[in-house]
Order: sequence, then structure tokens, then C-alpha cells
Amino acid sequence: MKTIGKLPVNVKVISEGEEEIGSEHLDGFIKENLDKLRCDYVVVSDTSMHSIEHPSICYGLRGLCYMEINLTGPNRDLHSGSFGGAVDNPINALAHIISKLKDENGKILIPGFYDDVRELTPQEREEYAKIPFDEDEYKKDLGVDELFGEDGYSTPERDSGRPTLDANGIWGGFQGEGAKTVLPSKAGAKISMRLVPDQDPKQIEKLFTDYVKSITPRTMKVEVKSMHHAKPAITPIDTEAMKAAVRAMGKAFGKDPIFMREGGSIPVVETFQTLLGAPTILLGFGLPTENTHSPNENFDIRNFYNGIKTIAYYYDELSKINNNHG
Amino acid sequence: MKTIGKLPVNVKVISEGEEEIGSEHLDGFIKENLDKLRCDYVVVSDTSMHSIEHPSICYGLRGLCYMEINLTGPNRDLHSGSFGGAVDNPINALAHIISKLKDENGKILIPGFYDDVRELTPQEREEYAKIPFDEDEYKKDLGVDELFGEDGYSTPERDSGRPTLDANGIWGGFQGEGAKTVLPSKAGAKISMRLVPDQDPKQIEKLFTDYVKSITPRTMKVEVKSMHHAKPAITPIDTEAMKAAVRAMGKAFGKDPIFMREGGSIPVVETFQTLLGAPTILLGFGLPTENTHSPNENFDIRNFYNGIKTIAYYYDELSKINNNHG
Repeated sequence: MKTIGKLPVNVKVISEGEEEIGSEHLDGFIKENLDKLRCDYVVVSDTSMHSIEHPSICYGLRGLCYMEINLTGPNRDLHSGSFGGAVDNPINALAHIISKLKDENGKILIPGFYDDVRELTPQEREEYAKIPFDEDEYKKDLGVDELFGEDGYSTPERDSGRPTLDANGIWGGFQGEGAKTVLPSKAGAKISMRLVPDQDPKQIEKLFTDYVKSITPRTMKVEVKSMHHAKPAITPIDTEAMKAAVRAMGKAFGKDPIFMREGGSIPVVETFQTLLGAPTILLGFGLPTENTHSPNENFDIRNFYNGIKTIAYYYDELSKINNNHG
Repeated sequence: MKTIGKLPVNVKVISEGEEEIGSEHLDGFIKENLDKLRCDYVVVSDTSMHSIEHPSICYGLRGLCYMEINLTGPNRDLHSGSFGGAVDNPINALAHIISKLKDENGKILIPGFYDDVRELTPQEREEYAKIPFDEDEYKKDLGVDELFGEDGYSTPERDSGRPTLDANGIWGGFQGEGAKTVLPSKAGAKISMRLVPDQDPKQIEKLFTDYVKSITPRTMKVEVKSMHHAKPAITPIDTEAMKAAVRAMGKAFGKDPIFMREGGSIPVVETFQTLLGAPTILLGFGLPTENTHSPNENFDIRNFYNGIKTIAYYYDELSKINNNHG
């Protein structure tokens, strides 16, 4: 507006605060406001790029199936001296259950879990191989001596192109300083699975629930709860809208972006594509070093300005496209 | 004193408040005050009996080796979308470690753990078989559908005559309401082992530490801490002091007590026997239904009075023994 006096395209802004808890109300809102929201393209700025030296555009997101397991053994906390050895312990039982969800080579053991996984194409694996990745730097940044993951895949493939399973939280018994000899009544864990096309979170929820129930010993009562879902999403990279994004980003960063998938999930992307029928372009400016979801989360001030420039260039580029959805 | 005008024996009282944390300072105190504490018998009232209908005297206590495991994976909490699948997760790793400490049939898998276990004698097993035990009542009271424990042993044998391993606490990642997609930096657990004669807590600590380190994956840093120790203890049942205890209890309860071992630990018993050279008689009046170490812990008022009577009768009985440590 400063440069040419008016925006080159009409812009509608939609913002939400529920993304981290599965965007439960957003689908309903979009359905109720389809006419107001109708548009040619959707731009979402909630992704990261490879690095400030290697700008990238995200063309795929993993989905999510987030579950909680609650085990109850005895109906009250017991003295571990008086009952230990004769009554099963929900923490020990939970450890056995979690150890059977993913083996020590990163393979998920839930029957049927991989059935709908779309294998990475040879072309995609070539693209992955081009991503600048320094294993020593990566390990040093994270402070780990060794990486971990599914056999037969590289780290960039593992962190975004393959599904996975992580325990996000665990609790049970005495957690304070010192020692308490309790055989606890309850233990629980939060377990989430990142999904790739064409896995369906609802189907994965069912497979997970059935499997966990089947491996819970008869000494325990188990509750398996679904916390939230997100479908995996892929945006085609050969559209006019995507080519325009490459040009905009190239101008702002002085370097053409590479294409990458991202390991996280943005539930609404799949909704925009389905309900609005509009191509969704992910133009995000986060960096992997910004401690996302961790203490001291931050955002690089250089990309704050690079991002503003990219979006301004992108509006201009989009205005030049013959708008039959790219 | 009310009945005969004076106590029939001299009584020295020693009380401590550290039993639950391993009686760290008590041994030193006893060593420094050996002359003041010298005595013919020690009476400790910190055990339970079978039931109010079946009074019992405890002749054996399990020992304890209480450990803490702390695992560190990445040096900070990570976003499970961005890193999940490529970086090992300390909760998942901890579950694998705990699952390798005790199998699903209650057998402890630490190499050498059973080497020094004194097997129950045929006579002891006969005594165990006489203990009134109703499995259905026991399960109903605890609210469990099925019991659990080492193959080849009865529930009363498992809860006091055999060693065991329990996770007493576990923590890691997000424990609040809802969902947080974190791949945590740290996870930890408190693990304790109940020991029987002739297991040595120091030796068990070493076996545990070596084994846990050997099964920790190279993706993790591990710290294994010892929290506290108690040696197992057995008091002979054929002494004059024990026979006097049987008589005293018989008068107070109107029924002769049976002999039982107890699953818990009282570290000082072994110290009294070693440093004071005095037989230690365990005259305790707790009941297994009193929620020890659990919310709503209580003490049966009937045994409050039965206990007072037993101790009064016992002083009288002891005064009649020729005191060569009977």
C-alpha cells in the first residue's frame, strides 16, 4: 500500500487460537461462513524454513493422533513393603505397554499402523538428499551423542516424511525429593503419533486403542482417551500459486527457496483445501533453532522483516496470475 | 505400675523420625551412646499382624535398596512434530529400561539379583501355608481382578518371603490437562527393591547401577542414584524372649499368635542386633487394612488397647526370664 497506493489483491484475515489443541471449533466456523471466506488462495504463515541461509517452502505437513492412557491397579496407594511382589504395579505395567508401542530401532509395533503410509517417491527422496544437513552440528545443537530413528531413512526423512510415536508425558506415584515406598494405584501417559499421507487419524486412534487394550495385563484397568486429531496434508508444488511463492521468497531472501516437508501438524490446512477448495500455500518464517514449544521460545528478528517483504511480494505476484486457482 | 506399684523391668525409650528415609543418623547415634543404651532385649512396635482375629508376631523383615534413575536426551524440550522420529525420547527410553528390570511374570531380570537369596525352608513354607488367606477377599479389598507375582510362590510368600522390584514414581514431559506436543529433555523414575536374607543392599545397588547403565541406549545420558538402604533381618523364633512374647500376646488377645514374616523394612532392627547384641522382638499392632503410606491411613482403636495390654504383660513376662539374652 505504501509503494503503489493500494493492495494488489483483496485480503481476508482469519486468525485462531486453538491450533495447539486441534482447532476443534474452526471447521464449524468455516462451514458457517463459507460465503464470507470464499477466496482464490489461502496463505498460512505457521511453518518453519530450513535455515536463514537456506530459505524453504513447506509443501507437506504431518498429521497427528494424540492419545492418553490411564492405568489403575489397586484401588488405593499401597505400601510397597507389604504388597510389593504380590500386587501388580501400574508404573511397571505402563512401562511394558509403552515399550511395546515402538521398538528400540524406532519401528512402531501397532498392528496395521503402516498400512496406509504413502511411501516417499524416488523424486522426494532425491529432494530430501539435497537438503543441507550437518549431522554433527545437529547433534551438537541438541546435546546428544547419537541420533535415533527408523532404520533405512535419513534424519530429514525421519523428522517429516515418516510417521512416528512419542510419549509426550508420563506420571505416577511419588515424584518429589527423596524416597517414598509406595506401590501406586494409578499411572498414566500422553502418547502422540505423527502421521503422513494417507494415514487417517481416526483409523490410527482405533488401531492404537485396540492394541493398547490387547497388551494391558488383566491386573490393570485401562482407559484410552483420544485428545486430538490432525490430518496430514500435502500441497502440490507445480501450481502457479506455488511458483509465485518461489519468486516472492527469492526476491525477499535473495535466494530461491527449496521445497521441504515439515514434521509438525496444522489441522486447518486440510480443512481449507476441502471446504474452500482453495490451494493453501504455507509461507512460514520460523527457524528450527527457535526452541518451539520449549522454554525461551524466540523468533529471529531478521525473518520478521524477510517475512513482511515476502508477503508483500507475494500479493503482487498473485495479482498477476490468471486466477483459475493457480 | 498401676497394678503392682512399679515397672517389673527397667525401660529405656528411644524414638526416631527417620525410618522412612533410611534412618541415616540412627546408627551413628547408637554407636555414640552404646553404654547408655545397653540392654537385654529390644522391643520395636512398628510391624503389623495378620488380622485382629489372627494376631501374629513378625520374625522377619525385608531389606530395601531404593534407587533413582534420571535420563536426559536432548538438552532442551523439543517440538515433537519437528524432531519426533529423529531424536530419541527419554520417556520411551525409560519405559524400555523399566520393562527390562522385571518381566511380566514378576521375575527380576538384573543379572545376579537372586544369587544371595536364601530360599524359604520347607518348614517356613509349611508355616506360610497355615496363614489364613482368602484370595477372593484380598482381591476384592484391593479392587483388582487378578493378582500378580513370581511364578511358583503363594501370595503370602511373594509379599514377604521373596525379593521384589517396584517403580515407586515416574515423571517426564507434560502432565497437565489436555495435550502438549513436546519431546521432553528429561524423564526419571524411583525404583526400589525389597530384599530378603542374605541379599546385601550395597551389592544390589551395584548390580542395579551396572545393569541400568548397560541397557541405557547411547542416545541418553543416565544418572543412577542410591536413595537409601535397609538390610533384611530375621529374628530366631525359638528364644525365651520370643516365647514370652507369645504368652503376653496370647493373654492380651485371648488367642496365641502365629509367626509371620513382613514385607516391609525397619533398618534399625539389624543395627540393634549387631551393635547392642540384644535380641530384637517385633511387637507391632498394625493391620494390613489400615492404608499404610496411602491417603486415609488409620489405626484400629481396638489394637491401641490390645497393644497396651500386650506390652504390659510382656514386661511382666520378661522380668521372669533368666536374662542371659534368653
